[in-house]
Amino acid sequence: MSHNSFGHVFRVTTWGESHGPAIGAVVDGCPAGIPLRAEDLQPWLNKRRPGTSRHVTPRQEPDQVKILSGVFEDERTNGQVTTGTPISLVIENVDARSKDYSDIRDKWRPGHADFTYDMKYGVRDYRGGGRSSARETAMRVAAGGIARKVLGETITIRAALVQLGPRKIERARWDWSAVEENPFFCPDRETAELWAEDMDALRRDGNSTGGVVEVVASGIPAGWGAPVYDKLDSELARAMMTINAVKGVEIGSGFASAAMTGVEAADEMRRGKNGPEFTSNHNGGVLGGISTGQDLVIRFAIKPTSSIRTERATLDKSLEETVIATHGRHDPCVAIRAVPVGEAMAALVLADQKLRHIAQLNR
Amino acid sequence: MSHNSFGHVFRVTTWGESHGPAIGAVVDGCPAGIPLRAEDLQPWLNKRRPGTSRHVTPRQEPDQVKILSGVFEDERTNGQVTTGTPISLVIENVDARSKDYSDIRDKWRPGHADFTYDMKYGVRDYRGGGRSSARETAMRVAAGGIARKVLGETITIRAALVQLGPRKIERARWDWSAVEENPFFCPDRETAELWAEDMDALRRDGNSTGGVVEVVASGIPAGWGAPVYDKLDSELARAMMTINAVKGVEIGSGFASAAMTGVEAADEMRRGKNGPEFTSNHNGGVLGGISTGQDLVIRFAIKPTSSIRTERATLDKSLEETVIATHGRHDPCVAIRAVPVGEAMAALVLADQKLRHIAQLNR
Amino acid sequence: MSHNSFGHVFRVTTWGESHGPAIGAVVDGCPAGIPLRAEDLQPWLNKRRPGTSRHVTPRQEPDQVKILSGVFEDERTNGQVTTGTPISLVIENVDARSKDYSDIRDKWRPGHADFTYDMKYGVRDYRGGGRSSARETAMRVAAGGIARKVLGETITIRAALVQLGPRKIERARWDWSAVEENPFFCPDRETAELWAEDMDALRRDGNSTGGVVEVVASGIPAGWGAPVYDKLDSELARAMMTINAVKGVEIGSGFASAAMTGVEAADEMRRGKNGPEFTSNHNGGVLGGISTGQDLVIRFAIKPTSSIRTERATLDKSLEETVIATHGRHDPCVAIRAVPVGEAMAALVLADQKLRHIAQLNR
Amino acid sequence: MSHNSFGHVFRVTTWGESHGPAIGAVVDGCPAGIPLRAEDLQPWLNKRRPGTSRHVTPRQEPDQVKILSGVFEDERTNGQVTTGTPISLVIENVDARSKDYSDIRDKWRPGHADFTYDMKYGVRDYRGGGRSSARETAMRVAAGGIARKVLGETITIRAALVQLGPRKIERARWDWSAVEENPFFCPDRETAELWAEDMDALRRDGNSTGGVVEVVASGIPAGWGAPVYDKLDSELARAMMTINAVKGVEIGSGFASAAMTGVEAADEMRRGKNGPEFTSNHNGGVLGGISTGQDLVIRFAIKPTSSIRTERATLDKSLEETVIATHGRHDPCVAIRAVPVGEAMAALVLADQKLRHIAQLNR
Repeated sequence: MSHNSFGHVFRVTTWGESHGPAIGAVVDGCPAGIPLRAEDLQPWLNKRRPGTSRHVTPRQEPDQVKILSGVFEDERTNGQVTTGTPISLVIENVDARSKDYSDIRDKWRPGHADFTYDMKYGVRDYRGGGRSSARETAMRVAAGGIARKVLGETITIRAALVQLGPRKIERARWDWSAVEENPFFCPDRETAELWAEDMDALRRDGNSTGGVVEVVASGIPAGWGAPVYDKLDSELARAMMTINAVKGVEIGSGFASAAMTGVEAADEMRRGKNGPEFTSNHNGGVLGGISTGQDLVIRFAIKPTSSIRTERATLDKSLEETVIATHGRHDPCVAIRAVPVGEAMAALVLADQKLRHIAQLNR
Repeated sequence: MSHNSFGHVFRVTTWGESHGPAIGAVVDGCPAGIPLRAEDLQPWLNKRRPGTSRHVTPRQEPDQVKILSGVFEDERTNGQVTTGTPISLVIENVDARSKDYSDIRDKWRPGHADFTYDMKYGVRDYRGGGRSSARETAMRVAAGGIARKVLGETITIRAALVQLGPRKIERARWDWSAVEENPFFCPDRETAELWAEDMDALRRDGNSTGGVVEVVASGIPAGWGAPVYDKLDSELARAMMTINAVKGVEIGSGFASAAMTGVEAADEMRRGKNGPEFTSNHNGGVLGGISTGQDLVIRFAIKPTSSIRTERATLDKSLEETVIATHGRHDPCVAIRAVPVGEAMAALVLADQKLRHIAQLNR
Repeated sequence: MSHNSFGHVFRVTTWGESHGPAIGAVVDGCPAGIPLRAEDLQPWLNKRRPGTSRHVTPRQEPDQVKILSGVFEDERTNGQVTTGTPISLVIENVDARSKDYSDIRDKWRPGHADFTYDMKYGVRDYRGGGRSSARETAMRVAAGGIARKVLGETITIRAALVQLGPRKIERARWDWSAVEENPFFCPDRETAELWAEDMDALRRDGNSTGGVVEVVASGIPAGWGAPVYDKLDSELARAMMTINAVKGVEIGSGFASAAMTGVEAADEMRRGKNGPEFTSNHNGGVLGGISTGQDLVIRFAIKPTSSIRTERATLDKSLEETVIATHGRHDPCVAIRAVPVGEAMAALVLADQKLRHIAQLNR
Repeated sequence: MSHNSFGHVFRVTTWGESHGPAIGAVVDGCPAGIPLRAEDLQPWLNKRRPGTSRHVTPRQEPDQVKILSGVFEDERTNGQVTTGTPISLVIENVDARSKDYSDIRDKWRPGHADFTYDMKYGVRDYRGGGRSSARETAMRVAAGGIARKVLGETITIRAALVQLGPRKIERARWDWSAVEENPFFCPDRETAELWAEDMDALRRDGNSTGGVVEVVASGIPAGWGAPVYDKLDSELARAMMTINAVKGVEIGSGFASAAMTGVEAADEMRRGKNGPEFTSNHNGGVLGGISTGQDLVIRFAIKPTSSIRTERATLDKSLEETVIATHGRHDPCVAIRAVPVGEAMAALVLADQKLRHIAQLNR
């Protein structure tokens, strides 16, 4: 019941505050013998890193990850591998500006965790949101890089932004290669251009918006997951809902399923070249909590960034009514940088599920 | 990592198959001294019980729960109370018809867990869906009744069906008292009548549909929950996603948040008579994974019942292409009976969170 | 952190009080496809059953175990196998005498959990010790029978009583076949005869005594267990210490190691026919928390039965000083019936460790 | 089932190898508002630190602990307090000598985890024992310092060495103030002098020996702990058995209980000034897994240091027979420095049990 850990067999524990000296993670339960260097994790971190376009926060964090334990030179392969002992990852906080925090120290920002942390703990590190900052997700991405190695190369996990504010992509134009080419991780080149305009307008207005991220995992064999309380989809839902600002999660056809009939929604089965095939994937790759072998499809909704330059009514800690506007360096749409985080969470869930599945084989 | 357990401090483990001799649950971690008799749990079970209207399965199960351990006569109050030891609950399966199961033994029903259980385990109790049957949820409802006692009378947890197939309720007509008066747990009397017609048509057509359930928990103090990986909303999302046929979960404004601006979505704060108040509840009672003191609002989407009388294409276990139609006793819309189950899952999460919150107070 | 569960992957949850309607267990995480019938578990239960000689309690409990879930007929083998879903085990309490409990209701018996349960919970089922009765260990023995099946036939787990009161066995006379031939599970026939006399004297005096049980597990491959906080030996120590009345646990040379020198205590290695061999086993088959491939050797000490016919000073619940003597049906030496329980606990630890080990292989 | 974590509510995860860049721990579940600075932990670390007398390893490690997260300045008290978020502790490895490791890289040292780590993981950091080194216990001591703060000042946890090699202390001469005055943590001044001679002889001979540590915790209220599988004593047994080189654990009269009669072993109760009192403490402060309010008394046995200068027979990794002698900087009796580690483990167990107990009160 550790509040800051995720996973059962492949288990990640993170620590650190946004403006403390560093953030870090301990990855426990990673099998031994997996080639691993810090450089392997860096590309995933770079995808999430702030300051890469005008549409995300200008905070400059190189996010260089260091591995302090759990790896060793393997004589046989002459490379560094995991040893089965806990892997300690650390990233120093570099650009944590020394500034006047009195406003967020004394007032509860609407939509932020300021009020609830104060209610629960009576004290909080208010600098940059402290522990509740999305800066914590950098460690998820680093740990997710290790999880991908546990999953191996036959499994791919990709994500894209499919809605930004009220504007959705056109699914007919979906092209995975587009995702790497625009600052929104948008799979639809035309919509990406409209989003750039939308974002410029929002920034001018001191406003923000939300979005929807879609994660697709391919290559998962049938049989991963478990019935009843540890379903693959319930673990994925939990995982995505732990990401900052997420307010909804759905699998396959999700909320749209509610309006379908049973005749429409049935994912019928046919015999394919390599065994059973399905004629549709309304269930998003999961039946009864266990993978079907189809693509896993998960979507999650992110609310608008709560830190905006427009004044909002609130209270200060002495319960006096006041207003607050946030002038820090913030993402006008946190959904963008949530794309690599969604991928990472899927990787963490799947690496854990893979090892848990193996444990039930009793070979 | 127990697959059939839920909760950390207040922990429920269920067992049993749809057509086995009985189903049951063990509730561990329930505090001592709470008045508890089987009769206290029966009203919740009766709400979920099959066979109560023409719109749900005609299977006749009295669902009489027995308590086999964990309670004892308390001399001081002259009543039966919990003793702090595990509470064993059992319900006998009465109306498990002896019939010809060859069809569901040999064929994988589309939308069901037949295929995935076979892939994972190589063997399954196919009678009535075995372990994957929603019959398991009876134990959640029974355990949820105990959870409500842990929460006490100042906390109320209610749920309603807010969408059946494509037809949604009119929120302006919401009346909690209506929920108990129609077979759909519908808070809008006019919509309930239309749903009756919709359902009659579906039944005639051998078809089925889905729905959306909304759960509201009131009276939760600010401060329950925890940051990062054990957020109150991530636990709720996980809980709801463990319910059979659920494909999506959202908190507060949920997926609609994605299209909002930060100015709209801010739940501003004002000083009320009894302390801080919020002018809206887009966040559904949770900020940063911790309760705000507002109503908790959770919605989940249920897919159409997969067991339909209309033939669908599928495979048999020798991978031959075939068709299947299901002629058993099934709910044309399982979302209806999921209403009390959603309430129960919220109760289980909240009782656990209450005790976990207390553990952090170090009094 | 479930108080009444044991194990992580292979996980057992027990419930029930000594004089309630029944006791039971739920075994979760058992792999699918293992042949299992209630009759397979009965021989282990019979070994532990009360009423089998004059040296143990005359309570008559047939201890017939029933399996209520988690098994199904397997068409391929035409036998009943596990399905991967939770296995519910139940034993009815038959000989729970209706009698006058006022003495143990109102007074705290020295050496028993009466006082501490009252301090913790404020209420307890005092009949026959309620939840704190060693009757609970029947479920460990039943679940241990399933664990043995997970371990397979190449692993054997045996136990013997090596000390009863102050009298120890002569190790030179150790003969495993003797264990089944006397009512003490004693591997030394001569000592067994002396123990019979010792026990008769104790019974005449209304007194009781303790003992030491030795458990030996053979056939464990090298590599099971884990470093630091989940060591194989720390799990075994915990397991044995959960058995009623156990006050000490040791592995290999145990407490005697403290007096040895490093030169003596080194388990030197040589090349044997089938790979590495050790010239001694002071470490009891574990190094650094991981199995060496040698026999696992665990000993645990049991205190004298606290329920004796001789009067002892105590308090009643109103804190008045008084005396108590226990005239129920009790084992004068509970260490005897702890022998099969020790075997069962070793089986539970090892089945769990086996599955956890497999999970780290990432095959 | 995290291999490198300890505790359920108050949960410690450690990482790091003996000769890696650093070792560390993450303490999760620590309540908020507890005054905490690195300086508070340093005295406990100094007690365990190497290089403090000729009787322990000359390795020079300042063991300066840093706190990287989870604390913040509290305006009200003007001091640094815990915030309820994870506390990251780090100690740099300073004196990790660059040397020739070929001997321990290629040969399995008898009594060490070299062989078993190779069997389990196929690769290991052999430098200084890597993860299996007792250097890891520095983090237990640091975390134990935080645990003591959770327990508060009314609870004291002390430990002493009561046997070194075959020589035991004289209990009649027990004086807690002596413990701080000699390099052995010996509570008996006369025996301490004899131990100094014993140790000098062992060092001259290139030999080593074991010892027994006794931990006493005072001020624990009645009612902590839990029945059946989470007994206070089973958690303590597990905790002590996780310490490097421990081969046995006992509570109260421990193994000596086996030879007692029930009449002798009964801890009778009388009415004292402040409520119930016991006339003896054979049970070591625990009945039925729950604290009695008496002193908790735990003893554990440590085997002789396996690293000795005397040659022992062994195998190398190609299974060739060879010999090995260890010429590094080692403690001739690791039991000495295990004294503060035993205290720390008791503190970790008790802080966790305190919070778990509170969680069951449902206030």
